[in-house]
Amino acid sequence: MNKGTLNLITDVPGVQVGHVTLDQCINDQDSICTGVTAILPHEGNPFLQKVHAASFVLNGFGKTVGLIQLEELGLMESPIMLTNTFSVGAVLEGTLSYMLEQNPTIGDSTSSLNLVVGECNDSYLNSMRLLAVRPEHAVEALQAAAPGSFQQGAVGAGKGMICYGVKGGIGSSSRIAEHGDNAFTLGVLVLTNFGRAGECQISNWEQDKIDKPDGSVIIIVATDAPIDSRQLKRLAKRAAIGLGRTGTHIHNGSGDIVIAFSNANTVAHESDHPFETQSFLRDDHPLMNELFQGTIEATEEAVYQSIRLSQTTTGRLGRVIEKGVFV
Amino acid sequence: MNKGTLNLITDVPGVQVGHVTLDQCINDQDSICTGVTAILPHEGNPFLQKVHAASFVLNGFGKTVGLIQLEELGLMESPIMLTNTFSVGAVLEGTLSYMLEQNPTIGDSTSSLNLVVGECNDSYLNSMRLLAVRPEHAVEALQAAAPGSFQQGAVGAGKGMICYGVKGGIGSSSRIAEHGDNAFTLGVLVLTNFGRAGECQISNWEQDKIDKPDGSVIIIVATDAPIDSRQLKRLAKRAAIGLGRTGTHIHNGSGDIVIAFSNANTVAHESDHPFETQSFLRDDHPLMNELFQGTIEATEEAVYQSIRLSQTTTGRLGRVIEKGVFV
Amino acid sequence: MNKGTLNLITDVPGVQVGHVTLDQCINDQDSICTGVTAILPHEGNPFLQKVHAASFVLNGFGKTVGLIQLEELGLMESPIMLTNTFSVGAVLEGTLSYMLEQNPTIGDSTSSLNLVVGECNDSYLNSMRLLAVRPEHAVEALQAAAPGSFQQGAVGAGKGMICYGVKGGIGSSSRIAEHGDNAFTLGVLVLTNFGRAGECQISNWEQDKIDKPDGSVIIIVATDAPIDSRQLKRLAKRAAIGLGRTGTHIHNGSGDIVIAFSNANTVAHESDHPFETQSFLRDDHPLMNELFQGTIEATEEAVYQSIRLSQTTTGRLGRVIEKGVFV
Amino acid sequence: MNKGTLNLITDVPGVQVGHVTLDQCINDQDSICTGVTAILPHEGNPFLQKVHAASFVLNGFGKTVGLIQLEELGLMESPIMLTNTFSVGAVLEGTLSYMLEQNPTIGDSTSSLNLVVGECNDSYLNSMRLLAVRPEHAVEALQAAAPGSFQQGAVGAGKGMICYGVKGGIGSSSRIAEHGDNAFTLGVLVLTNFGRAGECQISNWEQDKIDKPDGSVIIIVATDAPIDSRQLKRLAKRAAIGLGRTGTHIHNGSGDIVIAFSNANTVAHESDHPFETQSFLRDDHPLMNELFQGTIEATEEAVYQSIRLSQTTTGRLGRVIEKGVFV
Repeated sequence: MNKGTLNLITDVPGVQVGHVTLDQCINDQDSICTGVTAILPHEGNPFLQKVHAASFVLNGFGKTVGLIQLEELGLMESPIMLTNTFSVGAVLEGTLSYMLEQNPTIGDSTSSLNLVVGECNDSYLNSMRLLAVRPEHAVEALQAAAPGSFQQGAVGAGKGMICYGVKGGIGSSSRIAEHGDNAFTLGVLVLTNFGRAGECQISNWEQDKIDKPDGSVIIIVATDAPIDSRQLKRLAKRAAIGLGRTGTHIHNGSGDIVIAFSNANTVAHESDHPFETQSFLRDDHPLMNELFQGTIEATEEAVYQSIRLSQTTTGRLGRVIEKGVFV
Repeated sequence: MNKGTLNLITDVPGVQVGHVTLDQCINDQDSICTGVTAILPHEGNPFLQKVHAASFVLNGFGKTVGLIQLEELGLMESPIMLTNTFSVGAVLEGTLSYMLEQNPTIGDSTSSLNLVVGECNDSYLNSMRLLAVRPEHAVEALQAAAPGSFQQGAVGAGKGMICYGVKGGIGSSSRIAEHGDNAFTLGVLVLTNFGRAGECQISNWEQDKIDKPDGSVIIIVATDAPIDSRQLKRLAKRAAIGLGRTGTHIHNGSGDIVIAFSNANTVAHESDHPFETQSFLRDDHPLMNELFQGTIEATEEAVYQSIRLSQTTTGRLGRVIEKGVFV
Repeated sequence: MNKGTLNLITDVPGVQVGHVTLDQCINDQDSICTGVTAILPHEGNPFLQKVHAASFVLNGFGKTVGLIQLEELGLMESPIMLTNTFSVGAVLEGTLSYMLEQNPTIGDSTSSLNLVVGECNDSYLNSMRLLAVRPEHAVEALQAAAPGSFQQGAVGAGKGMICYGVKGGIGSSSRIAEHGDNAFTLGVLVLTNFGRAGECQISNWEQDKIDKPDGSVIIIVATDAPIDSRQLKRLAKRAAIGLGRTGTHIHNGSGDIVIAFSNANTVAHESDHPFETQSFLRDDHPLMNELFQGTIEATEEAVYQSIRLSQTTTGRLGRVIEKGVFV
Repeated sequence: MNKGTLNLITDVPGVQVGHVTLDQCINDQDSICTGVTAILPHEGNPFLQKVHAASFVLNGFGKTVGLIQLEELGLMESPIMLTNTFSVGAVLEGTLSYMLEQNPTIGDSTSSLNLVVGECNDSYLNSMRLLAVRPEHAVEALQAAAPGSFQQGAVGAGKGMICYGVKGGIGSSSRIAEHGDNAFTLGVLVLTNFGRAGECQISNWEQDKIDKPDGSVIIIVATDAPIDSRQLKRLAKRAAIGLGRTGTHIHNGSGDIVIAFSNANTVAHESDHPFETQSFLRDDHPLMNELFQGTIEATEEAVYQSIRLSQTTTGRLGRVIEKGVFV
């Protein structure tokens, strides 16, 4: 399939990505090697213009926040925030402040707000117990979010992550689903922190020796194809297939979670009309199979991009995770 | 069915409850009228001795944290914390600090930690946008947790909640499931913030006039019956039936979420043995139907207790929610 | 809430119900006391014009067929058939023949067909092991289906069923969801075969003495409100609440299953257009809460109707189940 | 990982497989090219000694029967039967008769019986509308079931199936999960009827030209590792990963369904004891990751075996599906 112009999730019009990276050696014992990544679903206010969304939990050894309401209503009303496992609380609070400032009626005269935060455990490199990420870092990541190119690899929430025993982090890729006169973009962004070296399908790395708990992976799928939450869940399951193609057996201790959204149709927070009239792609149209294939391909490539675009990184206790080189 | 000695969730041996209540009128506009409630599953360290657990989402317009991992592993490894919608981040962070202090290896040499926080929106009475609950309040609630009697009504996380148009909050009840020589205790604790006055089955209150978003309810089911996560999910669904008996039609904007656990069998965080040998109740044994009925009865009564034991409460903007009197 | 003209599921325009009842005493040991009930979602061909649909499994001790595809696609493309547990195969085959005759391309040039069959265990009265229901009985029930009034109680699939220790079977009820200029009809049909006499909320029957396995209940919710599969699942959960109001604790051995559909928007089996443009009710519109309440009320009343409209019935081994009289 | 002795699902002690193949050219238009495959979970009576089981629906465009109860109770109490889409009713009835004969109390004094039937659409080669499979064919397949070697490819339910544009059908493979002194066998059997030629990862077949609806795949995972239904669902998800490795993008119209069971611990239909005491593998033990990897590997290989061991097959309308040759 054809790729988007940038081969990034931001090829989906309106989608924006921003990073804040924390990188500081404190002493022999401790280093801050972590960050926050923000994904905005479109250029407007996501609370006022909600997007259709769904999730799929491939392996639930994870702490992602916000999926209950997203599943019930089939809508997402906030950015997606990524960070380390112990910083979910701080990022929740920072993102809440950011959203409250933009929306003075939330928590006052209108309903509450559902935030979405995903995480992976970067404690091999990052002194995660120090809780270095503060609420303001979430705000900074949101303010940094922009359309177009963004950095991949050991950056933002990906700063301290490890994938297949080498340096992982943020990766992205996109595909164009085409049929007849119709063409839609599908983009994937991953935060990779999973797998053992021996498992990677496209490398001949020896099994790694590092002793760490199984990691996790968060997969974000974005599209401008007009599909609803039920259909987005179908895409989310295909993202799991794409992940599996890279070689992992989906370890017990890995939180492998997919969140998919479409910004083609938005739903206003309030409306005078009782009904929403929207167009959605028929499930039996060839474009749906194109979207399925695109999700698999873009997820697989995004994982590899997270490795290709990372650099060797030193973290706490002088630990070094090498850049992985595909031969 | 017979009730436990105290008719409280703490009739289940080992279960402990603690509250922190924040109650402060700041000015004509703003009042702090909220809090935190902690439920500990047993007297030991819940991370080192995990309990079997499950959840059921009756209506997912809610922001409860921690259910993904609980569902995947069928285990809970933390206290259950309750608070207002905007304080989930602060309570996560406070509970994390508390648990990290007790467990120096979490986030260092062993895996991460899954926390469970439930919430309801108390913004009618509480100036929720002020984010008055801080991490240390979560720690205080945990430190206050104790076996035996505890306060119900407008206390802890229940301080600012509204149920059926009158004052709601924390309620609890328990039942004894008995058959032959076997007897087990089942207890329920609810945080009630749902419904309209005209709906309540046991009152003749007129429809309330207050204009507020649909509320929510969090239901905690605890038992010392030896049942596993699959069976606990069956109990969680019966809690929804008990809730429905009180009259609500489970409003669109209500986060109605059930979490159930059993502390009969615990699972050690680490073990030298590959296998866990445990005894669980057969699904076809009459005790299972007793547990089902007990869950329904205790949930129904706990909702009413949250009203009966609340007092008229004044919150922000001079708003007053009256005590509900059953005739 | 207001009821529909007939207080039946057929108050929803287009919905049709048909019964075949088998009632024959063979000898001292065996009696045929069973049947088939067909519910058609609209007056057209359900394969060519599919309806939005969803299901909810309250307690899965049941053998209902067809929910996997219904959940994946959010559509139902067949009638709903009800019968006894051991006749699911025969009814599947009969319904298949009926649909194949109407649709010559199914299984040839177009895709296959997803059928929906629900069941309860009527073996206390019916000699279920004799497999008396044959495929042609399913065809007869389908041919008997008609709009308007239909018989309730010990008829069709309800012939041999037992509810709260007295005679149950087929019951139905309807409600009108109204707001402003909009009004929609919601109807429920139940096949009741559950509960013990002592549990029924509106009777003072003594606990029954009959020794039989826990039964089941199938609940069909139909509406002409324009809602999609995600929203219909929300209704299906409320039907469980309505069931719970009648008193059952949802026994271990009971298959308590809800299927909900809307015939407001249909989806053509094939289309030249890639997109479907349809209007759906906003979740936050007051009509949604009306539909929720209507589902609960109609389900509760339908259960009672299945008892009120049944007659004392004699089955195998001379067993008699009395008509239940509400005082 | 090491394979079992036969590289078949029957490497799992007790598991038995039997086929009935129907192969008859009726005239220029019609051919019977279909069958039934039976998988028995152990050598005893599966109703009296139930096995732990779970399912995972990767894509629900399918008509598999029996998963609702299997999910509720975490147990399977019958053989697993495979056939074509339109023969589910006949196979249900045949399997029911077989089980009733073995268990005189089912449907009389004890509870009912949950049967499991999976299907794929073989209508490209098979005149599926003729409903050639009769109940007695299911009985024959059950009687043919035996331990040890069994035929793969175009046999039994696989007779008329098509995979990646070439002849598919029944395939199987097994792996040994080993750690320290412990070793368990995991076997997979697939019924393959999915994919387009161009997708297959290990072939360079050109895109096929045949015009048929998307197919399906049923994946059966068996193990003698002591794991419960929650853990078996984790394996079932990994089987989806193994399927995805072969290249399919999981087409819209494909019913991709996994059923997993363990015969290590059985649960008696009735017991005088209220409790079951059983040992299960800890989720964090390395054997669990071995089982995950084994499931992926065996599923992937079983798909390829279904192609390797099939022969060119002629069906209705003179249609021929060629044997696929891997270069």
